[in-house]
Amino acid sequence: MGFHAEVKVRFSDVDNAGIVYYPRFFHFFHVAFEEMFSSKFGIHYVDVINVEKLGFPAVHAESDFKAPLRYGDIADVEISLGRLGEKSVTFDYRLVRQPANELCATGKVTVAMIAMEGFRSIPVPEKYQKLFRSIGH
Amino acid sequence: MGFHAEVKVRFSDVDNAGIVYYPRFFHFFHVAFEEMFSSKFGIHYVDVINVEKLGFPAVHAESDFKAPLRYGDIADVEISLGRLGEKSVTFDYRLVRQPANELCATGKVTVAMIAMEGFRSIPVPEKYQKLFRSIGH
Amino acid sequence: MGFHAEVKVRFSDVDNAGIVYYPRFFHFFHVAFEEMFSSKFGIHYVDVINVEKLGFPAVHAESDFKAPLRYGDIADVEISLGRLGEKSVTFDYRLVRQPANELCATGKVTVAMIAMEGFRSIPVPEKYQKLFRSIGH
Amino acid sequence: MGFHAEVKVRFSDVDNAGIVYYPRFFHFFHVAFEEMFSSKFGIHYVDVINVEKLGFPAVHAESDFKAPLRYGDIADVEISLGRLGEKSVTFDYRLVRQPANELCATGKVTVAMIAMEGFRSIPVPEKYQKLFRSIGH
Repeated sequence: MGFHAEVKVRFSDVDNAGIVYYPRFFHFFHVAFEEMFSSKFGIHYVDVINVEKLGFPAVHAESDFKAPLRYGDIADVEISLGRLGEKSVTFDYRLVRQPANELCATGKVTVAMIAMEGFRSIPVPEKYQKLFRSIGH
Repeated sequence: MGFHAEVKVRFSDVDNAGIVYYPRFFHFFHVAFEEMFSSKFGIHYVDVINVEKLGFPAVHAESDFKAPLRYGDIADVEISLGRLGEKSVTFDYRLVRQPANELCATGKVTVAMIAMEGFRSIPVPEKYQKLFRSIGH
Repeated sequence: MGFHAEVKVRFSDVDNAGIVYYPRFFHFFHVAFEEMFSSKFGIHYVDVINVEKLGFPAVHAESDFKAPLRYGDIADVEISLGRLGEKSVTFDYRLVRQPANELCATGKVTVAMIAMEGFRSIPVPEKYQKLFRSIGH
Repeated sequence: MGFHAEVKVRFSDVDNAGIVYYPRFFHFFHVAFEEMFSSKFGIHYVDVINVEKLGFPAVHAESDFKAPLRYGDIADVEISLGRLGEKSVTFDYRLVRQPANELCATGKVTVAMIAMEGFRSIPVPEKYQKLFRSIGH
């Protein structure tokens, strides 16, 4: 279930405590989000922004960090649909260290559906409702 | 009330939608957190880690994004004490665009109190209980 | 001589070897470059891009790293004018750890003068020739 | 010839001018460098640092930027051996946009061979001389 993307922890992802700097987890969530568009939906996210002139800015983000990630780790990031609102969507995330299958973080990111022009809030188009439902709860 | 740090939005802080990439807000919170140690507590955070061998890894982080930040913006980040637990501390954040005084984000980050050696959870030392209380709720 | 900006090494600027990740030195150079516009020239770099519709993309960058920078270090970044060409400008950088006054890196960045519209190469406007000369060789 | 790694330009790699922030090119070079160890040499770079206690800090880095990279671009980064010195190694880089095969940047990074303990300069071990030669000039 859900969409899965692999993320490699890079040399520069750690902080002075030798573990992944926690804001990077949200970056890893976003990398998976971008991959979901191209790999699963067949739409490059850059075209969503630049051609379809739509955007999904985060209005809420949260994460629980269960275990530290370190340089060299490979993570599986799972995205599933949390809640499909009229003008916003919540995605649930699980980041699991591989191959150990150890849960390192869970997260939840709510994005607003907007028209890039004027950053106006708009209803989630039918097409995206279908696509987001296709990844499963 | 609270501790205040100024953060300037840099050329590279934005994403392809032209607004600050949301994980950067958590970075801004961390920059303010680091500044609090040196400016308010008179202790360099690097010495907390490297000399005192203590750490404050995030175990939970969340943020509500109210208004986009853009390149050139100057933000005031306020930290106040949310909850002082026995082995963890929650800090509340407010990020306000200056000089307009427009609230752009609120946040909440819970850090565990650990000994760097072995990343063991330990009680918050008396000294830090006092310092964290000194910033106010 | 030259324009000076202070840069603080942040918790997340280091890599897994515990020293500043070398691409960050170029970021530090850019931070100083941005500061030069606002502090020395009285022009916000964001307005150069967004209002004047001018840009200074790097066409060449190089740096010699003399000593590692670590978390908690404070660096003085000096910019001086290397060479003022007709359609490009070369800036020289020196990054010195403070207060020890230890040279950590030297650098050289050549930027093209462009009109943002179409990224067309254009001659450096008189105004910027004067401003760049004002920082000294 | 050379070792090739694919790098995807992410949503957050661009700057306020809408093109990849130039220090990120050096990051892309480093990502390819890390990949070379695991994919080509069968040694995880993290083990070079943490187990073999060896490091390759950059002492010189330079790049010529030929064409801007944008969000959504996929780049092929080629590494070849520039010069194998006694205590340092120079790698040459070529970053080419795919599938257009457009050269966006060339680069050159010289790394020192060090023992992590004390950051002491040491001769390049026989094993690494062979491995670096194996990627070709």
